[in-house]
Amino acid sequence: MGEMIPNWLLQRTHLTPTRTALVFNEQTWSFQELKEIVLDYAMKLSGYSISHHSRVAILMKNRPKTVFLVHALQLVGAEIVFLNSRLTASELSYQINDSETTVLFYDLDFSTTAEDLERLCADLQSCSIEDLITSAKHIVNIHSEFDLDDISSIMYTSGTTGKPKGVQQTYGNHWWSAIGSSLNLGIQENDAWLCTVPIFHISGLSILMRSVIYGIPIFLMEEFNEEYANSLLQSGKVTIMSVVTAMLNRMLTALKDESYHENFRCMLLGGGPAPLPLLEKCAKKHIPVFQSYGMTETASQIVTLSPEDSFKKLGSAGKPLFPAQIKIVRNDGKDASALETGEIALKGPNITPGYLHHDMSVCDGWFLTGDLGYLDEDGFLYVQDRRSDLIISGGENVYPAEIEAVLMAHETVYEAGVTGINDTTWGQVAYAFIVGQNVTEEELLQFCREKLASYKIPKRIIQVKELPRNAANKLVRGKLRLLIEGRN
Amino acid sequence: MGEMIPNWLLQRTHLTPTRTALVFNEQTWSFQELKEIVLDYAMKLSGYSISHHSRVAILMKNRPKTVFLVHALQLVGAEIVFLNSRLTASELSYQINDSETTVLFYDLDFSTTAEDLERLCADLQSCSIEDLITSAKHIVNIHSEFDLDDISSIMYTSGTTGKPKGVQQTYGNHWWSAIGSSLNLGIQENDAWLCTVPIFHISGLSILMRSVIYGIPIFLMEEFNEEYANSLLQSGKVTIMSVVTAMLNRMLTALKDESYHENFRCMLLGGGPAPLPLLEKCAKKHIPVFQSYGMTETASQIVTLSPEDSFKKLGSAGKPLFPAQIKIVRNDGKDASALETGEIALKGPNITPGYLHHDMSVCDGWFLTGDLGYLDEDGFLYVQDRRSDLIISGGENVYPAEIEAVLMAHETVYEAGVTGINDTTWGQVAYAFIVGQNVTEEELLQFCREKLASYKIPKRIIQVKELPRNAANKLVRGKLRLLIEGRN
Repeated sequence: MGEMIPNWLLQRTHLTPTRTALVFNEQTWSFQELKEIVLDYAMKLSGYSISHHSRVAILMKNRPKTVFLVHALQLVGAEIVFLNSRLTASELSYQINDSETTVLFYDLDFSTTAEDLERLCADLQSCSIEDLITSAKHIVNIHSEFDLDDISSIMYTSGTTGKPKGVQQTYGNHWWSAIGSSLNLGIQENDAWLCTVPIFHISGLSILMRSVIYGIPIFLMEEFNEEYANSLLQSGKVTIMSVVTAMLNRMLTALKDESYHENFRCMLLGGGPAPLPLLEKCAKKHIPVFQSYGMTETASQIVTLSPEDSFKKLGSAGKPLFPAQIKIVRNDGKDASALETGEIALKGPNITPGYLHHDMSVCDGWFLTGDLGYLDEDGFLYVQDRRSDLIISGGENVYPAEIEAVLMAHETVYEAGVTGINDTTWGQVAYAFIVGQNVTEEELLQFCREKLASYKIPKRIIQVKELPRNAANKLVRGKLRLLIEGRN
Repeated sequence: MGEMIPNWLLQRTHLTPTRTALVFNEQTWSFQELKEIVLDYAMKLSGYSISHHSRVAILMKNRPKTVFLVHALQLVGAEIVFLNSRLTASELSYQINDSETTVLFYDLDFSTTAEDLERLCADLQSCSIEDLITSAKHIVNIHSEFDLDDISSIMYTSGTTGKPKGVQQTYGNHWWSAIGSSLNLGIQENDAWLCTVPIFHISGLSILMRSVIYGIPIFLMEEFNEEYANSLLQSGKVTIMSVVTAMLNRMLTALKDESYHENFRCMLLGGGPAPLPLLEKCAKKHIPVFQSYGMTETASQIVTLSPEDSFKKLGSAGKPLFPAQIKIVRNDGKDASALETGEIALKGPNITPGYLHHDMSVCDGWFLTGDLGYLDEDGFLYVQDRRSDLIISGGENVYPAEIEAVLMAHETVYEAGVTGINDTTWGQVAYAFIVGQNVTEEELLQFCREKLASYKIPKRIIQVKELPRNAANKLVRGKLRLLIEGRN
């Protein structure tokens, strides 16, 4: 058993009931109002045989009801499986079965997917959020304290094999992540965090957790809209926002000659270092960009770069949050010296205790990320290659191995290799290269569309004579992009 | 083993080396400079057979060298026994023997006491801080991580029997205390904490810990001086200060018609609720007073009252810090309802794991403080009677039982009873009542001076015919003050 601390929403409401908890379009909820709705939800959950450690999946958009349900599920002690609504039913069914999820709550927008999932997953009971709200209320066993070692959420991420793995996030992981961030960014009385990133990703969920821990409002947006985000940052109501490069680019384009309110103090940028022109544009407009490095396994950012270091340490991801540590491990297992490249290893109480049904790469308490990088003489981290040739496209992780597996399932394809190609809009997009015969690019794209979420569909599928391989005949994904240059 | 996190000073220096760590008179140290001195001290400690879990006492004033030594002792994993320099050698020797302390470091101001202590404590090796500084340096085993379950410090507090008990404070206790405070007060970029309270008390030590955890400077004062404190608060350099009522009164008197800089945002007031006239004076000068309730066992404040509630909830100590909880326990062991008086019980990760050699009063994970109080309908705590009739005089705890035991050790005294009487300068002072014969007040006062620290000496020792006792013949200290009124 870990440290026991009061349920965050209940304690926050006890301490500061009248502060604003949530803003969505023109509607506002105080912590007191939020708590009352959440208690109501919790009593309605009693009809769905959910108890401590039950796995409950949610397939929902960034809406107030999602916030209510997340807190209600925490109150009854369920482990929440966050489903990415951009995935296909086939991809989601794998996650539901793998996590032995028994109940699914969904937005009506996703009722077709929910039907498919009930068909694909034998023991799944699914219920729309609208049906939950009209359910009967019963007395429910409230968990008024969190055990920091208890699993709070599960999010799937693909690994080196392309097989998605459920990352277990404890209450402690979320707590330490929030505290580590507060020791870096501070907590100000007027703070408010704009959440336009999906709650089903750790970037969004972590904003929900910080809101109740810090006692600050979330400004929630159902879908990212650069005009509306800009208007909030100009109003002085929002002080912090989490973005990925593609979002920030769109916001700057829409912002034109204007700038943000002086209250706005932190643009927290995830998903890799920012390109220099973007940083220069932000500096010109006095937008304080905090670049960061993190992953589902670290319950959001674990390394950040302060705006004052952005230009001095161009391309760096920064230094660890206070409770965390980084080191670089060489191929021979020894610690690397400064400037020497190796595998990035992380340590800290915000790191997942492990995957569901899969081992985690841990050595002496250090989590081996699979990412390559180095530390400079001042201890700043430079990430050189994301693990398993990870492609980050518009903030979503895309794993080459997963797309390759789908392509090779097509009868005409002998070999497939996928890599990320830089793209001004999405940061990166996937390009696939195949060795095959008697098939058109469009046929293969259609085949991918049936199996993969749209953001994973390669922008191009290019037929080549052979794929670059090393002496051991292993695919060298890093050389795939040369095949495009060779074609030009 | 608890959560492992990086040594706070090392991590803070790694993250923000150039920020100011310490200001003392006109001198300033950055975290980088602080770390270098601390490493130097640590290497010099190697000559004193100090290792992990060694108990090392310090008898030192609020000076930079004390800050350096505290961090150096943390680096080598020692448990620091903080000695109150106002105690007599006889009182201190009890603490040293009880804690099995093997090494004592002291300021030259206390060399006579240190000599006495070497005589009184068989296995004690003592060394002045000046001698330590000129010691040879050796390679030393640095603890680059803290185990949050490890004991960091020991501070003595008297209990109901008047027998001092060593309170063990873990790194986790200090950590959670600092985090709980930050979630209440926030952390701002310009924060700086004025420390005029003794480092040997938890009120002072907790400022040292917050400084390295938050990355903010301490403005350290050797002795409280209202003129100098006022000048710092007027300069805009200090944003937070810890005080007790007597100090705040002196500051307000010296401040006359002036007020503080707008940067000054928190006057953290310990040691019982503030009297109304004091609050009114502060409100008039826009001084934001945060009243608080805490003790050595809770590693500083655990309940605080925000300035906006000061008048609405007059006399209240406030609400718990975020990770902590309060409840009131009735005589029959059941939880009290709102407004019902009972024993104040506390829960949270900042509470000591226990005393040295003494049991702690704990029930179902709740620490029973011995203090009486109630919660109002909104959950605000009102402390009605401090445990064991505790007298708080100028911020120091004075236990009636300890003074009574000394008085009764005098051959002429049959019975003794001690209570606190309100005093405009000190908050409270001790008054003693005795039943005895053939002795003068001056003789008894002289006897007390030999045995007790000066702040514990009763202001008056009054002979009476009999002491107020209840049916079980137990002394009723609460009725002692009536004996003064009877005399008038």
